[in-house]
Amino acid sequence: SINFAIKTVTLIPGDGIGPEISTAVMKIFEAAKAPIQWEERNVTAIKGPGGRWMIPPEAKESMDKNKIGLKGPLKTPIAAGHPSMNLLLRKTFDLYANVRPCVSIEGYKTPYTDVDLVTIRENTEGEYSGIEHLIVDGVVQSIKLITGEASRRIAEYAFEYARNNQRASVTAVHKANIMRMSDGLFLRKCREVAENYKDVKFTEMYLDTVCLNMVQDPSQFDVLVMPNLYGDILSDLCAGLIGGLGVTPSGNIGANGVAIFESVHGTAPDIAGKDLANPTALLLSAVMMLRHMGLHGYANKIETACFDTIREKKVLTKDLGGNSKCSEFTADICRRVQDMD
Amino acid sequence: SINFAIKTVTLIPGDGIGPEISTAVMKIFEAAKAPIQWEERNVTAIKGPGGRWMIPPEAKESMDKNKIGLKGPLKTPIAAGHPSMNLLLRKTFDLYANVRPCVSIEGYKTPYTDVDLVTIRENTEGEYSGIEHLIVDGVVQSIKLITGEASRRIAEYAFEYARNNQRASVTAVHKANIMRMSDGLFLRKCREVAENYKDVKFTEMYLDTVCLNMVQDPSQFDVLVMPNLYGDILSDLCAGLIGGLGVTPSGNIGANGVAIFESVHGTAPDIAGKDLANPTALLLSAVMMLRHMGLHGYANKIETACFDTIREKKVLTKDLGGNSKCSEFTADICRRVQDMD
Ligand SMILES: CC(C)[C@H](C(=O)O)[C@@H](O)C(=O)O
Ligand SMILES: CC(C)[C@H](C(=O)O)[C@@H](O)C(=O)O
Repeated sequence: SINFAIKTVTLIPGDGIGPEISTAVMKIFEAAKAPIQWEERNVTAIKGPGGRWMIPPEAKESMDKNKIGLKGPLKTPIAAGHPSMNLLLRKTFDLYANVRPCVSIEGYKTPYTDVDLVTIRENTEGEYSGIEHLIVDGVVQSIKLITGEASRRIAEYAFEYARNNQRASVTAVHKANIMRMSDGLFLRKCREVAENYKDVKFTEMYLDTVCLNMVQDPSQFDVLVMPNLYGDILSDLCAGLIGGLGVTPSGNIGANGVAIFESVHGTAPDIAGKDLANPTALLLSAVMMLRHMGLHGYANKIETACFDTIREKKVLTKDLGGNSKCSEFTADICRRVQDMD
Repeated sequence: SINFAIKTVTLIPGDGIGPEISTAVMKIFEAAKAPIQWEERNVTAIKGPGGRWMIPPEAKESMDKNKIGLKGPLKTPIAAGHPSMNLLLRKTFDLYANVRPCVSIEGYKTPYTDVDLVTIRENTEGEYSGIEHLIVDGVVQSIKLITGEASRRIAEYAFEYARNNQRASVTAVHKANIMRMSDGLFLRKCREVAENYKDVKFTEMYLDTVCLNMVQDPSQFDVLVMPNLYGDILSDLCAGLIGGLGVTPSGNIGANGVAIFESVHGTAPDIAGKDLANPTALLLSAVMMLRHMGLHGYANKIETACFDTIREKKVLTKDLGGNSKCSEFTADICRRVQDMD
């Protein structure tokens, strides 16, 4: 067996059930002997010079050094003017691509059995520019900002992803019939990039049509690429098709290998600290992380063990339809991982 | 039996399969002895003074007089600068509320059996303002315009609808966590209006969360109210849950009783003129129209006949899983309507 150099990853356990599910992931990684060392950091925002909210320097430095992070859920800030930490992280590290593979999980019953798609969301601009104006009392404008550069970058990411993951097609999702200039620009860049990837089929579809077709037959979709807000919507919709945010991994990818993988569910304060949480979404995000780092063997091993545990239905957390504790579910996956050696 | 005065309705048959399905609806209305007289008008846009596209005067005058219209599908304009006719109609008659009831149809198999909700979409502003700017080369802004007035108006429509249709709850759908000012204003107006409808439960939900929950369990939703683009997306998604645009009715409602009811599917040029089209969406839109006019008895009769035909599965058009022609499907509904007398 090859010996991999141990790599350090920044671990942001997060709030609520975050610490428990992070512990679960660490245990499973240990059982799999994955060559990962964790550097735990807290990302509660602090006020920097000029009153701007920022990531604490220890977390920023850790990420700058390690380039790769794994993150649990963060509670929604309640202080006025306090930004969403998720958005602040995407911005701070220019994580321009949000990637969410949605694959039906055998044994976990949903109305659909044949979902196998990936949503790739532009993660830095669009409706998330944060530019809004009060024109006169009772009249507000929000600005959706689309640039050719960011559109080209995300389109290139999507086609590279398709090519590297043996995916046959990329669909650009848009409303260029309504937002002719902004979505028009996004779409034009997708078309231009498509020219360089003749091995990948390119199609275009209106967002409303995608939603309609998605719930009728998700198996027709493969890789989908889209502006920020549409990605927010579609990625959640697709997560719903395979069982919800408790089982859906997510990665935020930047330039030069920088990336943060995260579970996108909430902090579930009602069950926090009770050993009841389901670590699957964070675990599968960590599996995405391993693949991103080129550690495919470890990724496959852990993923297989997790899916086997779910398919066997003997040791499942409550949300998955079982009666087991988080620690029992984790132990079952650990056992399987060890049995594979 | 009461004798209703015959009312005139503007009929816009539309393009492609539009004329055939309009004929089907007229036949069924005749069989039901519905007190409706049709005034057929064409709405191919013409260029008015100053080069502005406009609805032909004969169509505009007919609608101004009759106030109520029924409309088949219109083909997407291809001339540069030519507006979507659907948008132009909404604008010309200030049809501020787009209403789409989505109810599971017995006998028509989809992954869901218990959908019974209504999407109410603000139909005049938001992302559909059409205001876009090129800032510098490769940088585009689209403006989403939200006004307190339009937000209040649609919220009031939604609560009135809920109250008048024995619906228990209204959910405001938004992304005020991102678009704090625009969606924030929309949400504030919904909250204000909710104060006046203590008999209707009011909830708020993020659009992404609605999409996720919708595909997991649509039965939890009742009346949903939202800004323009979110309505475009959600209404199509919900149509998908019950079998698609071929069976989903839609109404565009303005002030003072003005309204246009329409099937929202396409013109299906491939099957146009072949007696293969499914008239259900236009028929159910016409049923909505009858209810809007207070003609509930006729509405119920026609709706029951249509659903009976679908449930019996003997005479169905191809898209519904059968082998019958449009005219045979229509005749089966006519027979049932007549048998009810
Ligand atoms: C938390 C929130 C700001 C975020 C978003 O809207 O992007 C979330 O919904 C997501 O998808 O990561
Ligand atoms: C035809 C198009 C302009 C329209 C829209 O985007 O509103 C359609 O999708 C609809 O829902 O009526």
